[in-house]
Amino acid sequence: MPRKGDVRARLQEAALDLYGERGFEKTTTAQIAERASVTERTYFRHFADKREVLFDREAKLDAALTRAMVDVPSELGPLSALRRAFLAVEGLLAENRSVAGPRHAVIERTPALRERELAKVAALTHKLAALLQGRGVAAQPAMLAAQVGMAAFTQAAVRWLEASEQPFAAELEEAFDALRRLAAS
Amino acid sequence: MPRKGDVRARLQEAALDLYGERGFEKTTTAQIAERASVTERTYFRHFADKREVLFDREAKLDAALTRAMVDVPSELGPLSALRRAFLAVEGLLAENRSVAGPRHAVIERTPALRERELAKVAALTHKLAALLQGRGVAAQPAMLAAQVGMAAFTQAAVRWLEASEQPFAAELEEAFDALRRLAAS
Repeated sequence: MPRKGDVRARLQEAALDLYGERGFEKTTTAQIAERASVTERTYFRHFADKREVLFDREAKLDAALTRAMVDVPSELGPLSALRRAFLAVEGLLAENRSVAGPRHAVIERTPALRERELAKVAALTHKLAALLQGRGVAAQPAMLAAQVGMAAFTQAAVRWLEASEQPFAAELEEAFDALRRLAAS
Repeated sequence: MPRKGDVRARLQEAALDLYGERGFEKTTTAQIAERASVTERTYFRHFADKREVLFDREAKLDAALTRAMVDVPSELGPLSALRRAFLAVEGLLAENRSVAGPRHAVIERTPALRERELAKVAALTHKLAALLQGRGVAAQPAMLAAQVGMAAFTQAAVRWLEASEQPFAAELEEAFDALRRLAAS
C-alpha cells in the first residue's frame, strides 16, 4: 500500500494532468481518483473538492511562513520581518517547481480556479497580518505590510519559477528593492 | 416609467435589503426584481447574475480611475500617479457612502460574494498596472505599484467610509505615508 504522502502527490499530479488534457470543468473527482489508482472516497479524504487538490501548496506555505516568523528577530520592522520569513520558504518553492508552470496555466484559464487562488492569497495575507500583530504591529500597518510584502513575494516567486536566472534570494531582494524605490518616488 | 438609472439603483437597494434580511443564498433574482417593482427580465438586462448587482461600484471606479489617469502629469512616478488618480474618485466614494456599511457586511459573511469582490479588486489592479504601462512604466514595477497603491487606497477608503474623522484626501495621505514608512523600515 502506498504511503499517505505518495497518494496525495499522485492525486495532485493526476488532477493537473487531467485538467490540462480535458479542462477543469470536464474532469470529475472519480476520474482523478482512477488515474491515481485510488477510490473516490480516498480522494475526498485528502481534498474537500475539485479545486482544493491544486492548492496544497498554499497550506504548506501558510505553515512554513508561520514557523519562519517565530524565528525572525523581534527588532526587525514589519516588512523586513516578512522578507526574512519569505527567504525561509525557498525549499518549499523548489519542491513545487516542476508543477508550477502547468499549474499556473490551468489556473489562469479557469475562472473558478482563479477565484480560489485569490481567496487563498487573501487568507494568507490576513494570516501574515495577524502574525505581525502578534509582534506588536498595529492592525492597519500590519495589513498594509502583509499586502505589500505578499505582492513583492509573489513577483519574486513567479520570476524565479519562470525564468530562474538567479537564486530566489536575489529575486526577493530585487522585488523588495523595487518596492523601496516605488515608495520613495 | 422610471428612468434607467433609477431602476438600477432600486435593484441594488432591493438586493442589499434582501441579502441583509434573508441572506444571499436564500434570495432569488425574482424576489429582488419584485421588491424593486420590475420584472426578472429587467433585472437581467442590468445585471448578469445575483452577485453582480453588488458590484456596480467597481465598474464605476474602473471608469473613473481610467479617466483620472489621463489627467495625471506625465512626470509623476507610478505611485504618485496612482495617488493623484485615487484623489479624484472621492465623489464616487461619497455617492456610495450610505450603502457601504451594509454592503460590506453582506459581502464579509458570504463566501461567494467575497470571492467575487477579490476578483473585482484583482481586475482593477491589472487595469491600473496596464494604465501605468501606458505611461511607460515597465511591466513588473507597474504591477507592483498597482498592488501597493490599491492596498493603500482600500485602507484609506475603508477608514473614511467607516470612521470619517477627516476628509478622504487626508486618509489617503496617511495611507501613502504609512506605505513610505514601511518601505523605509
